[in-house]
Order: sequence, then structure tokens, then C-alpha cells
Amino acid sequence: MLKQSQYLIPTLREVPADAEIASHKLLLRAGLARQLASGVYTYMPLALRTLHKIQAIVREEMNRAGAQELLMPTLQPAELWQLSGRWDAYGPELMRLDDRHDRQFALGPTHEEVITSLVRDEVNSYKKLPLNLYQIQTKFRDEVRPRFGLIRCREFIMKDAYSFDTSWEGLENNFQAMFDAYSRIFTRVGLNFRAVEADAGTIGGTGTYEFMALCEIGEDTIAYSTEGDYAANLEKAEVVYKGKTQPDLNVPPMEKIHTPATRTIEQLTNALQIEAKQIIKSLVLRVDDKLVIVLIRGDHELNEVKVKNHYDATHVSMASEEEIRNLVKAPAGFVGPVGLPADVEIIADNFVQDVQDGVVGANEVDYHLRHVKPGRDFQVKAYGDFRNIMEGDESPTGKGTIAFARGVEVGHVFKLGTKYSQALGATYLDENGRSQPMIMGCYGIGISRTLAAVIEQNNDENGIIWPVSVAPFHVHVIPVNAKVEEQRTASEEITAMLTEAGIEVLYDDRPERAGVKFKDADLIGLPLRITVSDKVQDGLVEIKVRRSGETFEVNRTELVPFIQELLAKL
Amino acid sequence: MLKQSQYLIPTLREVPADAEIASHKLLLRAGLARQLASGVYTYMPLALRTLHKIQAIVREEMNRAGAQELLMPTLQPAELWQLSGRWDAYGPELMRLDDRHDRQFALGPTHEEVITSLVRDEVNSYKKLPLNLYQIQTKFRDEVRPRFGLIRCREFIMKDAYSFDTSWEGLENNFQAMFDAYSRIFTRVGLNFRAVEADAGTIGGTGTYEFMALCEIGEDTIAYSTEGDYAANLEKAEVVYKGKTQPDLNVPPMEKIHTPATRTIEQLTNALQIEAKQIIKSLVLRVDDKLVIVLIRGDHELNEVKVKNHYDATHVSMASEEEIRNLVKAPAGFVGPVGLPADVEIIADNFVQDVQDGVVGANEVDYHLRHVKPGRDFQVKAYGDFRNIMEGDESPTGKGTIAFARGVEVGHVFKLGTKYSQALGATYLDENGRSQPMIMGCYGIGISRTLAAVIEQNNDENGIIWPVSVAPFHVHVIPVNAKVEEQRTASEEITAMLTEAGIEVLYDDRPERAGVKFKDADLIGLPLRITVSDKVQDGLVEIKVRRSGETFEVNRTELVPFIQELLAKL
Repeated sequence: MLKQSQYLIPTLREVPADAEIASHKLLLRAGLARQLASGVYTYMPLALRTLHKIQAIVREEMNRAGAQELLMPTLQPAELWQLSGRWDAYGPELMRLDDRHDRQFALGPTHEEVITSLVRDEVNSYKKLPLNLYQIQTKFRDEVRPRFGLIRCREFIMKDAYSFDTSWEGLENNFQAMFDAYSRIFTRVGLNFRAVEADAGTIGGTGTYEFMALCEIGEDTIAYSTEGDYAANLEKAEVVYKGKTQPDLNVPPMEKIHTPATRTIEQLTNALQIEAKQIIKSLVLRVDDKLVIVLIRGDHELNEVKVKNHYDATHVSMASEEEIRNLVKAPAGFVGPVGLPADVEIIADNFVQDVQDGVVGANEVDYHLRHVKPGRDFQVKAYGDFRNIMEGDESPTGKGTIAFARGVEVGHVFKLGTKYSQALGATYLDENGRSQPMIMGCYGIGISRTLAAVIEQNNDENGIIWPVSVAPFHVHVIPVNAKVEEQRTASEEITAMLTEAGIEVLYDDRPERAGVKFKDADLIGLPLRITVSDKVQDGLVEIKVRRSGETFEVNRTELVPFIQELLAKL
Repeated sequence: MLKQSQYLIPTLREVPADAEIASHKLLLRAGLARQLASGVYTYMPLALRTLHKIQAIVREEMNRAGAQELLMPTLQPAELWQLSGRWDAYGPELMRLDDRHDRQFALGPTHEEVITSLVRDEVNSYKKLPLNLYQIQTKFRDEVRPRFGLIRCREFIMKDAYSFDTSWEGLENNFQAMFDAYSRIFTRVGLNFRAVEADAGTIGGTGTYEFMALCEIGEDTIAYSTEGDYAANLEKAEVVYKGKTQPDLNVPPMEKIHTPATRTIEQLTNALQIEAKQIIKSLVLRVDDKLVIVLIRGDHELNEVKVKNHYDATHVSMASEEEIRNLVKAPAGFVGPVGLPADVEIIADNFVQDVQDGVVGANEVDYHLRHVKPGRDFQVKAYGDFRNIMEGDESPTGKGTIAFARGVEVGHVFKLGTKYSQALGATYLDENGRSQPMIMGCYGIGISRTLAAVIEQNNDENGIIWPVSVAPFHVHVIPVNAKVEEQRTASEEITAMLTEAGIEVLYDDRPERAGVKFKDADLIGLPLRITVSDKVQDGLVEIKVRRSGETFEVNRTELVPFIQELLAKL
């Protein structure tokens, strides 16, 4: 019998000063987690029970999808990371140490290198493929700014899986199996989530979805369609351009105008009394080793990832003030596409074509040009989709329009292809005895972050509201006055009876006032509370549903089936 | 259904060259573990199943004993280790790293500092004590010489528990509860073990037992009594001295003899034709900051730990050649207790008193003294128990004599006392409102080492012989010829039937020759093998018990109860 008086649940009355978001506050206030160092937490007994339940659900669904669990080391030799090129590329987020023999190791933030070298050494034939291997493990990433409690940590728990196939169709099967398993997992743990198309990022690969728990504190913007299930990350969401919608206008000749100290879109619209969409912004970007001018309509936002993908580049960033001056002889804010040397490369977002009578920088301090018409007054090398999607834009699926939501990434499914198998030599012999690189996918779930996301989505002003599937216990049994023999005895009998029936019970035997116990119960947030008062003399106890606040008066003799039914419904 | 063709069990025919001991060889050969770096291993799917079973047993028994599970971080701030003094004292075995802000961290090899600071911050009253908190976690220790596979690793899995009490009686209760839980755990996982009295070592504390799995490759010597259950580590086992057993002899006067190049006991016994027990060895030891001469009978072995405890010292080591020369003006090998300045401290093992006509060094190169009599020719400051116990010695319990065994430490229970609570300020208010330091115990189990020890004790020339409780699967189902439709179908039906009954089955569906499959089955070592041959036409299959080699021919219809009964008996 788990008696609360003996159990380490150090609840707090005060809201910790450094906690900004609900889940962080509640993890601390409900005694679930304690910080040891920035982004490094101890999981207290209640939280660990929930983590184990999340892990059990993850294992069930991974095994059901045909994946096999193993456990790889945290210490990873630098040599492996040098083979993949990530020893340098990963940067300061990779935690590193030297052992007593001055050999360098990384603390694993992810395990592509290790699993690829393992499978390279152990699997040589197509007969042993496909293979999907996963682990649940503590990971390390030296975040520049750990924050939001368990949302962005330096030490955290992940499930990571890696699939190995002989064909892209095989990868597609494994990928789909993982996508489906993830959907089941996040549904079972009680998250409101969306699978969101995302860019593959630095890990490489060609197809990727993020599973986002929807919450306002999310650091990522999700663009979703008001109809259908389309959703994508802002950086990924495609903007559909269907060609010019207006007839070709007769635009007056281009004209230079004096616009002193007018560098921003806002300053321009004020000074010239025009709308932002009449302006064509000229942004100078460094794309790997060259400088490129990208034109974007004044009311739109540049999407650097789309530019990066257009050029198949490794790095894209805004050019420095100096680089800009060298290129166009004018400072940022006055750059424009007109009259530049032929070797300056200009690309433009599709929607720039809709600006027929535009304003652009004159490549001269304090001057702009107006009545500028694309095609007439300047040429571009290519039009394309280089802007962020906006709320109200048409959905790429053609159904509905785009709305924004914010989310926390709790899962990620990637098609890696042959990036790591080629770098590390993970090949197999095909049916014809030819050596081929394995085709890989990788699939991650942030276990400890999922715990935080569940709390972030399931709480009210009084505390946590646990979904039954991952609640540390199902039922909180509370005698109104533990000093009254009859209430105490009844509480213990009820606890024993429910436990016998497989229901997990926390029994609050503390000699505290009822108000204190109820406050703690709401804060800890178990799905059901059973209050044992003087009415127990008549055989009656009160059940309160944490989420809805509903109460029921139930006879002790009918308690077990009543509770089972309630839990099944929640 | 777990089909072996799809399961990652990379068995090896060859015995790996660098594996010296049975468990290391078998971990590699049976595809259970793979080395990533020296002392750093990946647990393959089969091994992880066993690890999970060991962990489940540990959790059950820890919870039953009233302990609560939590999970502390691997990254531990240096400041905490500086508070306890172990940042320096732990030496190069502590793996250390700097984060991106140049803050220093240790990778936890143990968690006294972290748990003590946690309990310090969260528990302030005697009402919240006692408390026993445990975790199962990956630990790091930079062993100078990792070896023996999973026996001595740099990254390994441990269960560590820490108890907090208000009294020494309370600690005694927690200690006893852990001792009993450990006895149940090691019994349940199928180990032949002994609980062995041990010295508290550098961790500090006053009472400690090691749980030793008995195996010849063990690095520790256990002294146990041929009668009763007394067992102690060699460094701890007390040698009983009951006073002189012989009458006082009339010994001729002391005499100096020329013994050129005769420095060792063996050289002396040969040169003088005497027994080793007639020689009194004079060993110069550095005890913290002073030099001490310790006398030991020639046939006995010095026990430095006993000397250290006698002086309540921090460090004891053999003095350097230079220190010896400075002290006695003679090289090692010719040191003796006769005629030294009064400020040279001499202590002697009890049994030196039995040497009435002895040989000692003359404190002069190439000379010894004979006819030396303790008390007559030299004085000592104290007699005491300073030697290792030997086989044949009387047991300290008075019952039986001492025999030696070798063992691998799989568990450890310590009484820590107030060492850490005082260093880190973990105090509570007692019933009278007075601040008191908490009284602590700590309790470790090497989870991954236990896995290795189970294999070390349970194998034969053909492979592993898993105890049922921790076997990766219970039953191996093998069709003699998987190409024969009838055998294959029967095998799958049997697998499904057993699985349905809660029995864990590995089904070898590989298109290999029967001999290959049987060899792999013996190597992997599941408790029972079911062979499906042509006899299945008559409804018969063969069951083979891995441990005994017994075989049974059983009708398919009776298979489930038969297997259940066999497993219960094993």
C-alpha cells in the first residue's frame, strides 16, 4: 500500500520564479522533477511512474510494428563521428570528453553512427534485411539555452529507432509503419498532436515528418489546412502560385525618388503612402560561397530553407553589411534589382510577378525607384517558392486555407537514405552478390519531453489533469480526517480492495487538514479522487473526476466496478 | 511471433581472440553483446531481454522492501563533488567534462552527492523519515584496465539505493531489509552467491557486505568457513589469535650471519635451510605521513587494510626504497626490528609472538640476525591482526576452518553513517526541534555485471544455460527442416499456442541445416528446445532440457501443461 506520508512527493505552494510555462511550473509544484543543473533534472518517484508508462506504450507499439529493442552506449568514440563528418559539423551541442588515455568521446545525442557501424559489422546479406532497431535511452545535447523545464533539456530520455532496407520501397514500408506506430503512441498517451511535414535539416535525408504536440508555448509554428489533415512546418509548407491573377497593366516609366533614412518596409509605406505588397524587398543572401539577391514582396517573409533547397546548399545566411556594399555599392535598405551588373544573380519569389507597379531600392543611399515593373525594368534568373506561407493562404492540397498553430516537437520520422551507410560503409550483398549501401530511416520520440507535453496540454489553474493511460496512479484515496478510526480503516480497506482489482492507488494517510490534502490532490492530478468522510458510516464514499469535476456518491460495495467503468470511459 | 530469421542474433562460430573468460566469450558468440570501445558495449536484443528481467526482479524486491524508485541525472556538477571532497579523491576513474560554458561536470559513477543534496533540499523533518530511494541507471567509471567483457566496464548498468534514517537502529533496519532483498534478488536470478563481510573502502562507513557470485575467474578472494555461513573478503577476514601455544624456549644469543644477496623469504629458507615460519619479515610502510615497520611471520601475508584501520589512516602503501634507506640505513630485504632508534615505530602481527628463535634482517646489506627472540631482542609498540587469513586457519566464528573461493562482486550494502549528510548539510529537525544529520546507507547492484555472472556460472562447452527466471525466451522451437510444410506449420502453431499461454518463444524459421540450428540453440541456451520433426505427423514433438540434456517425446495436445510444469521445476 503506497502511503503518501512515506512517499517522496514534495509539493510546493509557491510558483517557482524561474518557471515560465505551465508544465515547468507543475513539474516543480507537484514534486515531479527537480533541477540539478541548467537543463539537467531528477525525475522524482511520481514522474518516473509516468515515464515508465510512456515507455511501456512506446515499447508495445514499436514491437508491434516489428522493431527490435537493443541498448547502445552513451560513450561514442570520436572516430565514428569523424567518419560521418559530424564530429566537426555538430558543433558545441555535442558534449565531448577525453578518457584517461586522452581518447576522445562524444556523449550520444543520437546514434546514427553507432547503429550504422553495428549493422555494418553484423549484417552482410539481403536475407537479414529489413531490420528496425530501437532503444530507449538517456541522451545528451549541450543546448545553448535550456528552457521550459523538460521541454528543452541537456540530458533527456529518447526513444530512437533506425531502419535498414534494401530498397526505397522497403524504407517506405518501415517509414509508414513508424508513422502509424507514432500516431498510435501519441494518441494513447493522451496528446493532442499533428503529424507535420518538415524539412530534413542538418541530419540529411529526403522525407520527414514531425509529430507536434499542439500548445501555445511551442517554439515551432505549424501551418495547417482548415480542411483535411494537411500540416507542415513553417519552413516546409509549400506556397502555391497559380500564375498572375490580374491583367497586365500599363505602368508609367520608372522614376528615382528621394527617400531619406527610409530603410524598412514600414518606413517606406508611411513615407510613400503605399501598401507593403507594392514593395519588392531585395535581400542579399550568402548561399555557401556566393552572394545572391532574393526578391520578396513587401508583405511576405523570406524562407531561407527554401532558398537553401533551391541551391542544394549547405549554409544560407543573410549577407553582412560589408558584403552588401561590395556587391551593390549601397547599404542594406536601399538594395534593388535594377541596373546591376550581369553577374549578380537575382532570384525572386513567385508573388513578385504580381507587383506590376512596384517600389524597389535604387542601390544608392536614401533613394528608391518607383513604377518598377518586373520583366520590363529588371530580369531574374528564376522565380520560385521562397517565402513563408501565411495565414489565409490557400492550402497546398487545394482544400481549405492555411491557419497557424504552435507546437512542441515530440516525435520525428526521417528518411535518411544512404547518407550514413555510405559514410560508414554499411553495405549488403544483394541477390546477385553485388554490394549495395543499405537504405536507412530514423525515428525519434522525446520520452521526457512527451511527459512535459502531456502536462502542458492537461492542466487547469489547480494543477495537473493526468490522462488515465499515463497517470502515476489511477486513484487518490483521501480520508477527510485521518485521525477518525473509521475513516482511516475504510480508506485502507478501499485502497486494498482497489489494488487487488489492479487499480493503482495512492493513499493520503497524512495527518493534514482536508483542505491541504484536496489542494495537493488537485495539484498532483490523479484521474479520480475518492473522499472518505463520515458518510462512510452509511457505506457511502464520494468519487470526484479530476478533469470534469463531476462527483458521484457510491456505495463501498459497488466501488470497484464503478471505478473500473469510470476509468475506462476517461 | 518472433522469427529468428528476422531477429538480430549474430552468433559466431569462432571464439573471439581477446575474450579470456567464459561469459565474455559467450556474450560475443551468442550475439548478446558487441564492444564499441574498450569497456563500452552495446546490449543486443537477446541480452536486453535478460537485462529487463533482472531489472524487473530488482524492482519487485526493492519495492517490496519499501524503497522508492526515482531517476537522477548522469551529469553531476563538480561543485557537489567538491563539497564531499571526492572531486579530487576519486581520481582518474571519475569521467569529467566541461560544458559549453566551461562548467565542470562528472559522469556519475555513483550518486551519494546528488541524492544527499536532493534529500537535503526536500526533507526537513523526522516525520518524512526513514526514506529509501533507488534508481536503475547507466553509470560511468574510467577503469584503468577494462576487462572480462561485462564484468569490468567503463559504462555499465547499476541499481543504486540510498537510505536516510534518524537513528542507527533505523539504519540497521534499512540495511537488514536491503540485505534480505539482495539475498532474494540473487537467488531469483539464479546465482550461486555468498554475502561476504568486506572493508568499507574509500566510500567510508562502518558496516558493509559484498554479495559475491562465486566463480573461478573472480578477482576477489573470499575466505569462508567450512562450517556455518561465515564469509569475508580476504582484506576483512579476522584472524583469531588465542595466545602462544608453545612453552617459552631457551633461545641461544642473537648472532649476525652473512647472507649475501638473500633478500626474499624463499632465498633465506634455501640459504639457511629453515622454514618460512621461522623468519620474521620486517616491512616498511608509509601510513599517511609517517613510516612504520610492520613485522609479519615469513609464511604470512601482510594485510594493508588492517594496518590502515589500526591507524585510522587514509592512505597506506609500501615505502619507497629511498624512504627505507633513510629510516634504517639498509635496503629492503635486510630490514629488521633489532637495534633501531627509539623513534622508529614497530608493530607486529600477533603470530610473530610464536616465533621464538627467529631470523630477521640486520639493517645492513647482506646480513641477517638469527636466534632472535621477540621481547628479548626487540620490542614492539603493539601486536595485532595485520595479516591475511589463510586456508586452514580457524574460522573467526570458532566453527570450522577457513577455505578460499573466488568471486565477482555483484552487490554491495554499506552503512555510510553521516559522512555525506554532514559534508552536504543534509539535516532534519527531530521531535525536539533540534537539527541532526541524517544517517545514511547505500546499496548497489551491478545489473549488467549480474548478467555476465549468471552466464559465467551457467554454461557448458556448447554454450549458455539460462536459468528460467532471466532467460531471454523460455522455449526455442526448431523445425528440423523448415522447408517441409508440415513441420513449418506445426512449428508456427506450437509457437502461437505457447505464446498464448504466456510462454516466451523464439521460433527458428531459418532455412539452415538442422545441425546449424541445434548448435545455435545450444549456444543461445534457452531452457527448453522443442524439435519438430517428421514425427509431428503422428502428433509428436521432442522436448530437450538444455541443462540436463534430458529429452521427452510429447504429444502436441499435451504440450502446454507439460512445458509449464517443466519450466516450474527448472
